[in-house]
Amino acid sequence: MKTAFDTSVFPISADCNAVLKALQPIFQEQGMTETVHNWEDHGYLATYIKKNGSFANLRIHPHGLVLVDLQSYNDHIKGREEVDQLLNKVEERMKELFHGNIKRVKRLPAILRGGVIDRYWPTADGRLVEYDIDEVVYDEDSPFQNIKILHSKQFGNILILSGDVNLAESDLAYTKAIMGSGKEDYTGKEVLILGGGDGGILYEIVKLKPKMVTMVEIDQMVIDGCKKYMRKTCGDVLDNLKGECYQVLIEDCIPVLKRYAKEGRMFDYVINDLTAVPISTSPEEDSTWEFLRLILDLSMKVLKQDGKYFTQGNCINLTDALTLYEEQLSRLYCPVEFSKETVCVPSYMELWVFYTIWKKQTDI
Amino acid sequence: MKTAFDTSVFPISADCNAVLKALQPIFQEQGMTETVHNWEDHGYLATYIKKNGSFANLRIHPHGLVLVDLQSYNDHIKGREEVDQLLNKVEERMKELFHGNIKRVKRLPAILRGGVIDRYWPTADGRLVEYDIDEVVYDEDSPFQNIKILHSKQFGNILILSGDVNLAESDLAYTKAIMGSGKEDYTGKEVLILGGGDGGILYEIVKLKPKMVTMVEIDQMVIDGCKKYMRKTCGDVLDNLKGECYQVLIEDCIPVLKRYAKEGRMFDYVINDLTAVPISTSPEEDSTWEFLRLILDLSMKVLKQDGKYFTQGNCINLTDALTLYEEQLSRLYCPVEFSKETVCVPSYMELWVFYTIWKKQTDI
Repeated sequence: MKTAFDTSVFPISADCNAVLKALQPIFQEQGMTETVHNWEDHGYLATYIKKNGSFANLRIHPHGLVLVDLQSYNDHIKGREEVDQLLNKVEERMKELFHGNIKRVKRLPAILRGGVIDRYWPTADGRLVEYDIDEVVYDEDSPFQNIKILHSKQFGNILILSGDVNLAESDLAYTKAIMGSGKEDYTGKEVLILGGGDGGILYEIVKLKPKMVTMVEIDQMVIDGCKKYMRKTCGDVLDNLKGECYQVLIEDCIPVLKRYAKEGRMFDYVINDLTAVPISTSPEEDSTWEFLRLILDLSMKVLKQDGKYFTQGNCINLTDALTLYEEQLSRLYCPVEFSKETVCVPSYMELWVFYTIWKKQTDI
Repeated sequence: MKTAFDTSVFPISADCNAVLKALQPIFQEQGMTETVHNWEDHGYLATYIKKNGSFANLRIHPHGLVLVDLQSYNDHIKGREEVDQLLNKVEERMKELFHGNIKRVKRLPAILRGGVIDRYWPTADGRLVEYDIDEVVYDEDSPFQNIKILHSKQFGNILILSGDVNLAESDLAYTKAIMGSGKEDYTGKEVLILGGGDGGILYEIVKLKPKMVTMVEIDQMVIDGCKKYMRKTCGDVLDNLKGECYQVLIEDCIPVLKRYAKEGRMFDYVINDLTAVPISTSPEEDSTWEFLRLILDLSMKVLKQDGKYFTQGNCINLTDALTLYEEQLSRLYCPVEFSKETVCVPSYMELWVFYTIWKKQTDI
């Protein structure tokens, strides 16, 4: 299933009718049936229909913009060649008509729609990006979310949770950043990981000889998928839920945190790999911020006085969400300080902000 | 100028006519005029035209795929809301019709076409990616190429030469990689840079106290644009074409290399920042490979026996082009060896391969 999509932009200063007359034969030569709509004030839309189910839209705007869209169900390569030939003709004809005086011609790659493989996973800031996905490796609904693992030629397998790109096998930069960018000594330390079902953080920390790492992941199916298909990220660490210096609890982290707080259990590091900062900043999202604050408050309760809390924030472009997150930090039960770092995570296609948070040291 | 573009995919198993009948009222309620084409074998295309110049295509495929495309000339935000409302209705109606039994619904971000700012700069491997461009900073044609510097909210200013994303202010990773990834000692060394008009390599090497850096850039206008708008990349190094330990020659590098070779001038490092490996691997491109080999041969002639040659290769997905490049290396006048490294350059949206090449050391 293929949808060819292409644009040609010709800022011009001529009447729309002349453009229509010049371009009509190109489509008619293809054996396409024409339907023309004339808005008078808004130019023309000509629709060209082919017997094989393809069609084209030619939209001519009166101020000098011409858009051509083609949609077809053809075989991939053949369709692309056909599209190129047709658009070459459109371009030539327009150059003839305006004696080469055309400001811009732009063609966009075809968008592939409706196939088994979906290559379009928009960024957190809402931009359209196409991934080089060539295989659906895993696609299941758990009680909590949709879990996809898709194969990218360059990034390896990518974990996508409910439509959000979480982590690819290429993304050691993410794991390093959320562990403190190599500036921490985990040897002999007590570590708590919230979420982290892909196993990346656990795998990297276990290498550093910690005393004990506890990981609390709610979704067993994420672990099942990742231990099979994200082995470059998690190694063999998810093969057992218990190792020499780690344990994985399949639980909601809130009751676990409450239990630890009650027991007075303390950690050197708490790493929150749960969720991105909510993107929406509308009032009805207040409960999400409250949830975030609850996690932060409980985490601070189980964090040693000189401990550190690491978390991912959001993409650098969502400045309002980042500011709101930082405002939450001033509303915790104890005073905290924070620093942030911007990191390029290969599969994200956007720069990402990570936070380090620690308890403010008062009168020592 | 805005073109809203959106998709809804509903793999279904019902006759197309039922789908058309269910969705028609949604568009008609909008005061849109309908034109329906029935292919018999290939389903329906319904075109809906609004008085304000917008239109919609509803394409119903017989095997159960429904595509909705909307194109409008509206104000940005208003247009997006309208599109969302309409697509919500389409989705609801489809869920009613099939009792919630719909395999996938996918909406894509709107594509903005024909405006002053062009946000779409496809990757080297041909994928559609949208950048967060918000300003055209510089746009000029030199005798050699089109030079654009566009501002990205997250990457800073981006240099785009004839449509290819060259370097953004965020891309120190590129400059570091093409300088040998921090493993080289440039102190007191003789360095030759081919191309490099953005000044990034020159700026970074000059900091490392080389004996002399010679940069040969053909296009004065690239330097003019970058010294003004890419200062995070080049600092003040392009303000003068001559410094204490560097000189910039505005020349074609081929005659310069020939002159140096004739004079017996030798360098510790040659850094080729000229052009990517040709993407096309078709026979008519043979001259491009010959050009690449000429540059390589001449560079080896001016490279000391223990010197190193650095260059960027191509995106990691263009494996054929990378292989062809490596084949050229075995066809030089002297035997060479090489290593390669894959690097994530933030603004590229794809992983990039860099080469280190050196003269094979014989019988020592």
